[in-house]
Amino acid sequence: MGFWKSLFSSSDAPSASQAMQVEDYPSRAAGDRPHARIFFSTEREIDLYELEELCDAVGWSRRPLRKVKKAIQHSFLVVSMWEQQGSHRRLIGFSRATSDHAFNATIWDVVVHPDFQSKGLGKALMKQVIKKLRSEDISNITLFADPQVVDFYRNLGFMSDPEGIKGMFWYPD
Amino acid sequence: MGFWKSLFSSSDAPSASQAMQVEDYPSRAAGDRPHARIFFSTEREIDLYELEELCDAVGWSRRPLRKVKKAIQHSFLVVSMWEQQGSHRRLIGFSRATSDHAFNATIWDVVVHPDFQSKGLGKALMKQVIKKLRSEDISNITLFADPQVVDFYRNLGFMSDPEGIKGMFWYPD
Repeated sequence: MGFWKSLFSSSDAPSASQAMQVEDYPSRAAGDRPHARIFFSTEREIDLYELEELCDAVGWSRRPLRKVKKAIQHSFLVVSMWEQQGSHRRLIGFSRATSDHAFNATIWDVVVHPDFQSKGLGKALMKQVIKKLRSEDISNITLFADPQVVDFYRNLGFMSDPEGIKGMFWYPD
Repeated sequence: MGFWKSLFSSSDAPSASQAMQVEDYPSRAAGDRPHARIFFSTEREIDLYELEELCDAVGWSRRPLRKVKKAIQHSFLVVSMWEQQGSHRRLIGFSRATSDHAFNATIWDVVVHPDFQSKGLGKALMKQVIKKLRSEDISNITLFADPQVVDFYRNLGFMSDPEGIKGMFWYPD
């Protein structure tokens, strides 16, 4: 994690019903926000409009909020990433995973706001996801990667097509 | 489905709390079991030892039954395939899918007993899985295919690496 220092919920961390983890926000990444900090949360009560704004920022197609809500409710794991300045929190990253709670998990909807990309935050977000899945004894962590992010995931320890296993998508005949 | 004829639970079908679908079992596939019929079930109360026997028959590594039970409980969909002769039922195929209940599903653990392979039953099983997922409004049906079954899934309408999307698996650094 390089210059990242992990700290579990400190006294000034925002309260949350789910465990929340704090990462010190390095000033060189913060730019004009030197006092900002980064938080990760597994709380799934996320403002859907704020999440939509984040997904809009990276150019994703809009999806019905009713279905997004259902997908979040039925995900095994949700990890969101927040920038906190004083009492203000901003959603800057998101990821979730489906799972059978025993063997397999599949990671979906990994997004980091463009203002916060290329600072190691995507990597930090994914490490939180992997750590959490591993702590739940999930041995097979999978995902489907767009071509431009295959190397990003490879650097995190993901392998494409191991032993010739192919990711496949169903389309109607 | 060729010579298969689909029938919803007829009067002599076994009772089940989940919807159960009957396929007429063609005599040319039955060999010495001309009066056998094939049933599909979404009931997840499956005898774990019977399932283990089926998985043993195709040479899969054994998994703790406690975890198999948990995985079945937390799958979005379970479809099992049964041969019925008189009052005797035999588990001859199995498949399950994880899902966020909204957008994505991933199919795992597709197995057909060797005695019943190469008769179109794997295809029939997968068609049941796809039909059920589509009926639940899941638009993105995915799986990870071993090299020797990529063509099997391609014939069912699955595409490998569409638009360069790669299936990836996490392994520790």
